[in-house]
Amino acid sequence: MTNLSFFLSPFSLLATTPETENAPIVLTGVLLTLVVIYIASKVGGELSKRVNLPPVLGELIGGVIVGVSALHLIVLPEAGASAGDSVIMQFLQMLNHLTPEAMETIFQSQSEVISVLAELGVIVLLFEIGLESDLQELQKVGISAMIVAVVGVTVPFGLGTVGLMTLFHVPAIPAIFAGAALTATSIGITSKVLSEIGQLKSKEGQIIVGAAVIDDVLGIIVLAVVASLAKTGEIDVFNVIYLIISATVFLVGAILLGKVFNKTFVALVERLQTRGQTVIPAFTFAFLMAFLANAIHLEAILGAFAAGLVLDETERRKELDQQVIPIADILVPIFFVTVGAKADLGVLNPVIPENREGLIIASFLLLVAIIGKVVTGWSVFGQPQINRLAIGVGMIPRGEVGLVFAGIGTASGVLNKSLEAAIIIMVILTTFLAPPFLRLAFKESEPTPERGEVLDKSLS
Amino acid sequence: MTNLSFFLSPFSLLATTPETENAPIVLTGVLLTLVVIYIASKVGGELSKRVNLPPVLGELIGGVIVGVSALHLIVLPEAGASAGDSVIMQFLQMLNHLTPEAMETIFQSQSEVISVLAELGVIVLLFEIGLESDLQELQKVGISAMIVAVVGVTVPFGLGTVGLMTLFHVPAIPAIFAGAALTATSIGITSKVLSEIGQLKSKEGQIIVGAAVIDDVLGIIVLAVVASLAKTGEIDVFNVIYLIISATVFLVGAILLGKVFNKTFVALVERLQTRGQTVIPAFTFAFLMAFLANAIHLEAILGAFAAGLVLDETERRKELDQQVIPIADILVPIFFVTVGAKADLGVLNPVIPENREGLIIASFLLLVAIIGKVVTGWSVFGQPQINRLAIGVGMIPRGEVGLVFAGIGTASGVLNKSLEAAIIIMVILTTFLAPPFLRLAFKESEPTPERGEVLDKSLS
Repeated sequence: MTNLSFFLSPFSLLATTPETENAPIVLTGVLLTLVVIYIASKVGGELSKRVNLPPVLGELIGGVIVGVSALHLIVLPEAGASAGDSVIMQFLQMLNHLTPEAMETIFQSQSEVISVLAELGVIVLLFEIGLESDLQELQKVGISAMIVAVVGVTVPFGLGTVGLMTLFHVPAIPAIFAGAALTATSIGITSKVLSEIGQLKSKEGQIIVGAAVIDDVLGIIVLAVVASLAKTGEIDVFNVIYLIISATVFLVGAILLGKVFNKTFVALVERLQTRGQTVIPAFTFAFLMAFLANAIHLEAILGAFAAGLVLDETERRKELDQQVIPIADILVPIFFVTVGAKADLGVLNPVIPENREGLIIASFLLLVAIIGKVVTGWSVFGQPQINRLAIGVGMIPRGEVGLVFAGIGTASGVLNKSLEAAIIIMVILTTFLAPPFLRLAFKESEPTPERGEVLDKSLS
Repeated sequence: MTNLSFFLSPFSLLATTPETENAPIVLTGVLLTLVVIYIASKVGGELSKRVNLPPVLGELIGGVIVGVSALHLIVLPEAGASAGDSVIMQFLQMLNHLTPEAMETIFQSQSEVISVLAELGVIVLLFEIGLESDLQELQKVGISAMIVAVVGVTVPFGLGTVGLMTLFHVPAIPAIFAGAALTATSIGITSKVLSEIGQLKSKEGQIIVGAAVIDDVLGIIVLAVVASLAKTGEIDVFNVIYLIISATVFLVGAILLGKVFNKTFVALVERLQTRGQTVIPAFTFAFLMAFLANAIHLEAILGAFAAGLVLDETERRKELDQQVIPIADILVPIFFVTVGAKADLGVLNPVIPENREGLIIASFLLLVAIIGKVVTGWSVFGQPQINRLAIGVGMIPRGEVGLVFAGIGTASGVLNKSLEAAIIIMVILTTFLAPPFLRLAFKESEPTPERGEVLDKSLS
C-alpha cells in the first residue's frame, strides 16, 4: 500500500518539544509536592488536635515547617525563589538529570499548578463555608450580634490601617490590606471552645456565634474591596464606593436570584441520571459564580461563597454537604499548607537586629487584633447583666478567614515578606490565645454552668 | 516612630512582576475552562445515557464538540495551537485588554494547569478502577478467562502493530502504541449490557467479565511498557524485557507488600481524629505510588492502580469507595473531555482528499479491533456448548481504558494527529457497535433466558 508520509511528518522521535518532554516531570513534581502537603497537613492537624487547638492551625504550622522558613520542601517562586531553593526540585534533578533551564521551567510550571490548586482549595473552602452558613439563622441573630460584628470589623480595621500608616509609615494599600486581615473572626474555633465549656447556648454564646457569622460575610466583602483596590493600586473614593456597592449587590443579588434558581437547580439535578448528578452541577455553579466575581474585578471566593449560600437553601443540601466534604478535604489543605510554606518567618527572627522593627509591627498587629475585638463587648446595650469581656474575647481568634487574607494578599503582591509574616504570626497567636482566655473570661463571672460537667466527669 | 524602609523596599505598586499580574487571569481562565468542561461532560453523558450508550462516550463526544474539532472552547497548546485559537482566551482578552504576550503566557499557564488536572483525573480514575477490582475474584476467574484475556491482548496488539508497520509504513514506536491501544477491554460497558440482557451470571458472561478484568491489568502493564519505550525512543530487547519485568514486579510487589500495609493503613486511619481521616491517607498513598511508578520510568497510573488494588483489601474499603466517588466525579471528566477536545477529527473529514489515507488507517484499526477480540471466543477449550461468538463480541468495546491510551499517547508526543484521531474513532465505534452486536450474538444461540424478562415486562 502507499507510503503515508503525513503520518511521519509531524512526528519525530528526536524533535519532541520541551513542553512535551518536561510534562511527565511536571506531573512527578506535582505528585511529590501533594504528598508532602498532605503529610504536613495531617501531621500538623493531628498534633494540633491533640493539644486542643484547631487542626487548621496545625496545617498552617505544618506548612511553615515544610516551607521556606525551615525544610524548603514546598517553595513557590512568588517569594522570589528559584528552582535551586526547592529540595523537591533538587531531588527531581537528581532523578532525571535535568539541565538548569529545564529545571527552572519545570519549577515554574509545577508551582503554577500548585498555586492554582491552592486557589481552587480556598474557593472550595468558601463554597463550603457558604453551604454551612444558614441564611435564615443569619436573619434571626438580632441587633446585638449585628452591632458586635460591625464594631468588631471597623475598630480593628481602623486602628490597624491608621496605626500602620502613621506610626510605621507603611504605604496605604498594604496598610489597608493588613488592617482588613484584622477584621475576620473564626466561627469554628470560637464555637468549638464555647461548646466545650457549655456556653454555646448562653446569651453570650449566641451573640458571639451570630456576630462571627456576620463577620464572615462582612470580612469577605471587605476582602473583595481591598483586593480589588490592590489590583488597581489607587485609592479613589468613587472606586471604593463602587466596589463596596458592587460587592454588596453581587452578594445580595446572588442570594435573591438564588431563591428562584434553587428550584431550577433541584429540578435539574433530579432529571440527571449519570454519576456526579449533584456534585457536578453544584461545582459548575460555584466555579461560574467565582468566575463572574473575578470577571467584575471582585474576588473569586466572593462568588464561591455566594454560590454556597444559594445552594444551602435547596432540598439537596444534605447530599451536597456530604459530597463536598471529601473534595474540600483534598483541596483545602493545599491552600493552608502553601500559605504557611510561603510565609518566611525567618524575617521575624529576633536574633537579627534588622528584624526588630518587623517584630514591633507584628506585636502592634497582635495588640490591635486583641483590643479591637475585646472592645466589641461594650457595644452591647440594654443587657446590663451580660459578660462583656467574654463576648469580646470570644471574637479574638482569626483562624482560617485571617489566613485567606494573608494568602490572597501575598498572591496579589501587595504584602511584603515582613508584613505577611506579621499577619500570619497574628493569626497564629490570636488563635492560640483565644481558647484559654475565653475559658478564663467565662470562669470569672459565672462558674456555675461548668459544675454540672465537672460532676459528670467525676462520676464517670 | 522610625521609618521602616524595609517595608517599602521589596514592595512597589508599579513594579509587580508579570507572573503576579497574570495570576488572577490564569485562575479566571481555569475556572471558565472547568465550567465548559463540566457542562460538556454532563450534557454529553446525559444524552448518551438516554440512547443507552455509556456516559463516558458522551463525555468524550462532548469534549470533541467543545474542542479543536468544532467550537474551539477547549484548546490545548500540545496540538500546536496558540492563544488566538482559543475562544476562552479571546473572551478573556476582551475582558481584560491583554497584550498578545500576556495572552500567550496566560494561555500556556492555564493549559498546563488543565493538563495536570486531567492527569490527576486519570490517576484518580485508575485508583478507583483498582479499588473496584477485587483481587480475590481475579484469582477465581479460572483458566478460560485467563486464556481469553491473553489472546485478546496479544492478537489485536500483534495484528495492529505489524499491520501499521508493514501495510502503512508507520514507524515502530507509534505503531506499537496504536497496537497497544487495541488491547484494552472496557469492563463497564460489557457488564452493563450483559446485565441488561440477563446474561451476567451465564458461563459466557462470567468468562467475559473475568477476562475484561485481567485485560485491565495486562493493558496497564502494556501501557506502562509502551509509554516508557516512547520516552526513550528506542526499542531495545533488553529494555523491553526490563520494562515488562519492572512493571510486573511493581504491581505484584505492591500487592504483596500491600497485604502488610493494609493493617498499618487501617491502624493509622483509626488513630486519626481530624477531617479527611480516610481520604487524605488514601490519596497520599495513591499519589506516592503514582510518583514512585513515574520515578522508575513507568506510568503514574500503574502506581495509582496498584494503590487501589491494595486499599481495596482493607476494612475501610466501603467508606473509602464512597469518598472517592465525588472526587473522581469532579476530576475524571476533565480527563475525558480534554481527550475529546484535543482530538482533531477534522483530519478524518472524507471530503478532503489527503484525509482518505488516514481514514483507511482508521478503518484498519477498527477492523483489527473487532477481529482481534472476536477470535478470542475460539480460544476457549473443553466447553463445546459455549457461545463462542458472544464471548468474542463481548470483548469488543474499548471504552475508558482505550481513551487512557489515546490520552497518554498524545500527551507523550508519540501519536500524531491522524493516528490519535484514528484511535479515538476506533474507541467510539467499538463502544457504539458492541451493545447491539452483543444482543444479536446472544439472541442467535439461546433466546430462552430473555423470555422470562419479556414475560415480566408484559405482566407489569
